[in-house]
Amino acid sequence: MYSSDYLFDFTKSLFMKMGCSPEDSGIIAGVFLAAELRGHSSHGMIRIKDYYELWQAGRINVNPHVRMVHESPSTAVVDGDNAVGMIAARRSMEIAIEKAKTAGTGWVATRNSNHFGIAGYYAMMALKNDMIGICLTNANPLVAPTFSVSRMMGTNPIAVAIPAGNNPPLVADFATTPIARGKLAVAEKKGEKVPYGFVQDKNGKPSDDPSILKSGGSMLTLGGDRVHGSHKGYCLSALVDIFSAVFSGANFGPFVPPSVAYLPVLEKKTGEGTGHFFGAMRIDAFQTADDFKAKMDEWIETFRSAKPAEGEEKVLIPGDPERESEERISREGISIVPAIKDDLVKIAAALEIPFN
Amino acid sequence: MYSSDYLFDFTKSLFMKMGCSPEDSGIIAGVFLAAELRGHSSHGMIRIKDYYELWQAGRINVNPHVRMVHESPSTAVVDGDNAVGMIAARRSMEIAIEKAKTAGTGWVATRNSNHFGIAGYYAMMALKNDMIGICLTNANPLVAPTFSVSRMMGTNPIAVAIPAGNNPPLVADFATTPIARGKLAVAEKKGEKVPYGFVQDKNGKPSDDPSILKSGGSMLTLGGDRVHGSHKGYCLSALVDIFSAVFSGANFGPFVPPSVAYLPVLEKKTGEGTGHFFGAMRIDAFQTADDFKAKMDEWIETFRSAKPAEGEEKVLIPGDPERESEERISREGISIVPAIKDDLVKIAAALEIPFN
Repeated sequence: MYSSDYLFDFTKSLFMKMGCSPEDSGIIAGVFLAAELRGHSSHGMIRIKDYYELWQAGRINVNPHVRMVHESPSTAVVDGDNAVGMIAARRSMEIAIEKAKTAGTGWVATRNSNHFGIAGYYAMMALKNDMIGICLTNANPLVAPTFSVSRMMGTNPIAVAIPAGNNPPLVADFATTPIARGKLAVAEKKGEKVPYGFVQDKNGKPSDDPSILKSGGSMLTLGGDRVHGSHKGYCLSALVDIFSAVFSGANFGPFVPPSVAYLPVLEKKTGEGTGHFFGAMRIDAFQTADDFKAKMDEWIETFRSAKPAEGEEKVLIPGDPERESEERISREGISIVPAIKDDLVKIAAALEIPFN
Repeated sequence: MYSSDYLFDFTKSLFMKMGCSPEDSGIIAGVFLAAELRGHSSHGMIRIKDYYELWQAGRINVNPHVRMVHESPSTAVVDGDNAVGMIAARRSMEIAIEKAKTAGTGWVATRNSNHFGIAGYYAMMALKNDMIGICLTNANPLVAPTFSVSRMMGTNPIAVAIPAGNNPPLVADFATTPIARGKLAVAEKKGEKVPYGFVQDKNGKPSDDPSILKSGGSMLTLGGDRVHGSHKGYCLSALVDIFSAVFSGANFGPFVPPSVAYLPVLEKKTGEGTGHFFGAMRIDAFQTADDFKAKMDEWIETFRSAKPAEGEEKVLIPGDPERESEERISREGISIVPAIKDDLVKIAAALEIPFN
């Protein structure tokens, strides 16, 4: 078990050794640790290797000049200058929050960025400003639209954070597919099948094989099949792609650049880098902050008291599982599986920083 | 078969007889006919009876003073004064568009409204202004959160309309449940079962009985069950409810008032009437209009050329099915089933207007 502080210091040192400024390195480490603590280890330390290898391949800019290239009173477009995603994303969300202070809401589309970790981190930046936070991003294409076998979209997540009063904030943070990509990898390693509704083969036939992506298969959108509303999941994923990439001038759909160095740079481009979209909405642009928070408390308490189904313990509010993880993992420490630890030991040795 | 013009004139006369102004009656009739033409007859002429009976019961205000009660440069809260939903909604979307003209984006939360027809109608109002349009609404509680058997949410739709250049606009308009409520009614009338994943019984057991809502059952969220991501559908539906009702001060979740007169007014209130949420975003607040439209054309053409799955003809862009319906129904006319026609004949007789 590792303490959050130990892994934070290690990750910060590691990005500093790669040439990121101390401030940027601290931001990046903070997002990695937030993922671990919130129970999304698929976006935590396991990903350090991907960023390291992208840096080795010269595919990521450790000294970026992230800048606003277009704006209106409530909007901006940011060029991430091929930064580590966390740096472009955090700066973009800061601009959204600044815009909201004067215009009531702020909306920022970001191009020329890279994988940024967990979307919920940026949405939650709004909370301490008494704002609602929103964050979307496109991602590597793995997902087929309804009626198709072509991988056209990423697992394109949506995150929304809403402040409450006496209750913890509501934080929704979810991929627009039935499951995350990482769960297929886990099932494959264990030699298990996956339920139907997650993936299809190269001809569009339903499949329970978690390794099907390696033989031309694709992931399905939320809803699974047409009968169960997969076209609605397709709509959602498409909207996330358009808000992230068409608004900003980033690569869309099948042209989103890989977030790992072992996949080649794509020949065709439809824009620059990966795209994100951020929103900040001042709650007092709609109701007084006190009224809004009291009403959110009432909403949360009403939904928490819904009757559980037979065999279920309780009804959850979006963000409950992550908050429970954070409390538990902060107390117990962060576990890193041996294969990931081995990778980190090697990278630490190469960069001449301690890790054990 | 009826012509669109005939039904428009009839519907307009009908609402004028109920006391709505000629202008308001024309707006209401326009939304009804848009639903019929776009192939969503579940929100068309079949609903006239509901509005008529709500009016008879004195539960809807035909002479409303719809007004803005709170604002910031990019936001407003509108009080619908218990208007027919179309009137409060259209006025609210107009305000969102006005706000976007100066602030880049406009966001309006509306309370004290009623059922407003199809959400896509209001989102599409933005298109002719070179804006993206967004519309959300909460609705009668029929849907249970994940792990619950309580009906806490409506089928809470999301509509987004995005302009393109040479291509028709992309228009996504979908409920955050696998199917619309109306499809259960159709299956029930035909004596058919429905696929698992749409509804559950009063204990939370999966059910294929389309009449299960009458015996304490509930509809499921998009995703169907927890394994297939129903918690993501729950997040979506919850967000639509919060944006529509907590932002505006309308009734949320289980307290949304019925949109039919045969259900009693609820005793407990958490706000005023039904809630909606509208957004308008100027495309040139992000990119020049020409760049944006060219990029949307490229997006649409890329997705349209995705490879169809075996046995499928083509891959659709959100809004394609509705546009195809509109072309066909405008040409062929609107059919009204005998039971609905009988209702309309009776209402027409009572209001002393012609219908045949």
